[in-house]
Amino acid sequence: MALLIAVSGWDSESWAARFSALLPDHDIRRHPETTGDLSQIRYLLGWKTDPELVSSLPNLEVIFSLGAGVDHLLKNPNLPDVPMVRIVDPDLTMRMSEWVILQVLLHHRKDRLYRERQAAHVWKGEDVPSASAVRVGILGQGVLGADAARKLSVLGYQVAGWSRSPKSVEGVESFNGDDGLSAMLARTDILVNLLPLTPATTGIINYDLLSKLSTDGKRHPDCNAPVLINAGRGGSQVEDDILRALDGGTLAACSLDVFQSEPLPAASPFWDHPRVSLTPHCAADSDPQALSVYVAERIRAYEAGEGLINVVDRTAGY
Amino acid sequence: MALLIAVSGWDSESWAARFSALLPDHDIRRHPETTGDLSQIRYLLGWKTDPELVSSLPNLEVIFSLGAGVDHLLKNPNLPDVPMVRIVDPDLTMRMSEWVILQVLLHHRKDRLYRERQAAHVWKGEDVPSASAVRVGILGQGVLGADAARKLSVLGYQVAGWSRSPKSVEGVESFNGDDGLSAMLARTDILVNLLPLTPATTGIINYDLLSKLSTDGKRHPDCNAPVLINAGRGGSQVEDDILRALDGGTLAACSLDVFQSEPLPAASPFWDHPRVSLTPHCAADSDPQALSVYVAERIRAYEAGEGLINVVDRTAGY
Repeated sequence: MALLIAVSGWDSESWAARFSALLPDHDIRRHPETTGDLSQIRYLLGWKTDPELVSSLPNLEVIFSLGAGVDHLLKNPNLPDVPMVRIVDPDLTMRMSEWVILQVLLHHRKDRLYRERQAAHVWKGEDVPSASAVRVGILGQGVLGADAARKLSVLGYQVAGWSRSPKSVEGVESFNGDDGLSAMLARTDILVNLLPLTPATTGIINYDLLSKLSTDGKRHPDCNAPVLINAGRGGSQVEDDILRALDGGTLAACSLDVFQSEPLPAASPFWDHPRVSLTPHCAADSDPQALSVYVAERIRAYEAGEGLINVVDRTAGY
Repeated sequence: MALLIAVSGWDSESWAARFSALLPDHDIRRHPETTGDLSQIRYLLGWKTDPELVSSLPNLEVIFSLGAGVDHLLKNPNLPDVPMVRIVDPDLTMRMSEWVILQVLLHHRKDRLYRERQAAHVWKGEDVPSASAVRVGILGQGVLGADAARKLSVLGYQVAGWSRSPKSVEGVESFNGDDGLSAMLARTDILVNLLPLTPATTGIINYDLLSKLSTDGKRHPDCNAPVLINAGRGGSQVEDDILRALDGGTLAACSLDVFQSEPLPAASPFWDHPRVSLTPHCAADSDPQALSVYVAERIRAYEAGEGLINVVDRTAGY
């Protein structure tokens, strides 16, 4: 019985080398090079794996998704009925919060303006509010959303979090449900999306949502707001609506790590937009070794009869 | 008896307006417009104030410095022997930590590289270590240094702090004395200076110090280190040495908010250096209203017989 590594966009050979070292008593295979007999595959380590392959493993017991999101697996209509485990790793969580906090600070502290002034040799300070006057709203209060919320709160920001079901994070104002969403947006200067991609969150960041963000510019006129920061999934954003909001003044600026189509097409207006900072879906790119250790530990625990953790709820989609 | 506002580089009229509102029962004067009889001045609110003026106030009781540092006052050889109070305000501390954390994240997460890639329409991620593999060392463990250390530690960084006398901050490795300085530098990827400017710290950031920073590039080859971040005082840095370290490979990059001469002269090579991010001494620019409230409260407490807090130790220089 074997572990099959079927990851697209990653170097499968280095993944196989790590797993051979971590699980030397296991048969580690790579797709398509050393797939072999499909009936011998017990575990699948997948990332954007060919859906047909996923559906043709008769003795598959567990699918491990190489990331926090499993939307790449769930869109397969013939997904086998086995547990899917997603990565809920401290390393990934830490990296995501780093990226989110960096983007919040970049906008709040007007870094782009200072880079322009340095290039122009201009010595001139700019009024900015302190963090305690800046209201951050986070969509999603799972492990990632709660960690970012807690850390932003330590930095002094006024942090609120929205989630489908009620959650409680120390120092964070909690909102939930449809009414809660509108209420949170109305008190938000900087909106951070960390929601999983599900049918309910597809296209949630549209013009209507963006136009509900606080426009209370008079409260702290020096704040470059409202701002959108998306490190969740590109499928949650309507890019034409974001551009319309940016160009019409509904949105002051945005930071995007994810896009409706990735890699971002060469023709996308985001590349050259003066108020967009983009990164290539790398916000929470984890150390492959840390992810490998995580999955190997899950396999050891499963085989020791301890069961599985972080199993995806297929109805909720995460 | 009056409060004299003598601030250079600030708009004294708006300072006077705030103090007139906060202390309506006090005589608020501006230098030089409404200085009047020098013998009537009881309090001086100063920032880079003419030393001659400071020395010619026979009935001066307290000097309030408009900032965390008092080096601008202490270099006056005829400084009157009255208490000097410096700003130790939560608003200033919060802002300083925002700036420090932004700079640490900018270097660690290779933001400059991503901005260049965006401009070139290049969709390509870059390996970076997680915060837990990055060692930040902070020079200075007073209120500012300890706050930055604590917050960076919450983000996951390995944080150490160096101070003249032993200090203890939760989650932060503590170093002190000369031997402690070398030991801290040897384990530091990102060095942050938050020391006050005193005779002992003048020119402390020289080539010798920079060359003691960790060059253990093999430990995490993806980390853009070592990095220098200075938000303390420009007088603590030897700028020719920093440039030599940058150009010779001893230093990977730096973020500077302070300079030996401010405003930074037009001829300084820092403006156009590709691995220098500079800001115009604005890291902890506080809300003037918050600073005014702080000073007004100190005056009220002093007059109520409660004494003064955050009085400068002239021997230590802070």
